[in-house]
Amino acid sequence: MVPAVCIVGLSGSGKTTLVEKVVSELTRRGYAVGTVKHDVHGFDIDREGKDSWRHRKAGSRCVVLSSPERLALIREVEEEWPIERIVATFLDDVDVAVVEGYKGAELPRIEVIRSGVSSEPASPVDENLIAVASDMKVECGRPVFDLDDYVSITDLIEEKVIRPGRSQTVTLVVDGRPVALKPFIDNLLREGILGMIRSLKGCEDPRSVELRIEKK
Amino acid sequence: MVPAVCIVGLSGSGKTTLVEKVVSELTRRGYAVGTVKHDVHGFDIDREGKDSWRHRKAGSRCVVLSSPERLALIREVEEEWPIERIVATFLDDVDVAVVEGYKGAELPRIEVIRSGVSSEPASPVDENLIAVASDMKVECGRPVFDLDDYVSITDLIEEKVIRPGRSQTVTLVVDGRPVALKPFIDNLLREGILGMIRSLKGCEDPRSVELRIEKK
Repeated sequence: MVPAVCIVGLSGSGKTTLVEKVVSELTRRGYAVGTVKHDVHGFDIDREGKDSWRHRKAGSRCVVLSSPERLALIREVEEEWPIERIVATFLDDVDVAVVEGYKGAELPRIEVIRSGVSSEPASPVDENLIAVASDMKVECGRPVFDLDDYVSITDLIEEKVIRPGRSQTVTLVVDGRPVALKPFIDNLLREGILGMIRSLKGCEDPRSVELRIEKK
Repeated sequence: MVPAVCIVGLSGSGKTTLVEKVVSELTRRGYAVGTVKHDVHGFDIDREGKDSWRHRKAGSRCVVLSSPERLALIREVEEEWPIERIVATFLDDVDVAVVEGYKGAELPRIEVIRSGVSSEPASPVDENLIAVASDMKVECGRPVFDLDDYVSITDLIEEKVIRPGRSQTVTLVVDGRPVALKPFIDNLLREGILGMIRSLKGCEDPRSVELRIEKK
């Protein structure tokens, strides 16, 4: 999975504004950024009578629209997807995912605390809470950044989220010959396969995986 | 890649209506169906001022919205994605993809020909054109179905697109133990890995693939 950081906070705290600033700064620094917005109340993106709406009403579980400039996808789900699955599925070719919401996720998290909205973290003060961004003093045993200091907040994301190293090696042999892998493909294979295999019973934390595909 | 069929035809021929009927019938027969609509003129799905729009304007290359009922994704692309990439990326967990448009794709194709709009196939009469659906007689050396006979058209899709067999075996060994694979995971691993590996130089048509992931 690509590195991801959650920007959380109560409604009205300014999450979207901080996401905008951080995404902008990460982009300026050369990173390809993807974002996720958690919308517990649902959203309406597909208008009645449009072709995408007609596909969906006919029974399509997943409607994709494709144009030369843009791709869109609308997909009904039976239960809410965990953020890890969303990032692994849709954001596999960015350098970093900036996520708005998901305060309960097992991902590094920055909470926005705005005076008049709240005065202490609403999300758990656990090892995932890497910092607080606020317009006032907050005592919670975590680094507190000024809400407008998106440059330092982005520095922290680079240091704590984007840069930490990898812990597995990938070897690919095709028709008996080893194949050199660029970092993007290396990451795609490792995370894609481990993600699938971890969902299998008894394979939650594999030390080694060996996979063979052979023509009959 | 999951099996896919393209429904093509000139503007006004009734592609979307046939897609609706076929998707509906495939769903009734128990298949999980995904759809793709090719929109060469682009589409506007993301409204100014909405949070998804704000994420995108800040530089996010891929914005995902997630709610308990629905997922949506809006992604800018530098060039149009081939349909094969769209299906492999977004429709990996359906049984069949019904695609509206993409008449030049290397996929099985059914062309809709409506009297008053055209009288002969506008797409190539090649091995991919598996049938024509029309409200009149068409001579083109391909089976011609009545435009309203979506049951027979769906039969053909089942026979020619969904059922053709597989030609590779997949073996998975985790920590030295072979792991039994259900068809869905088998297919996911095979198609996912082959898809990635075929994009590597010199690996376009591998007879065997061996992949090892080991903890350092």
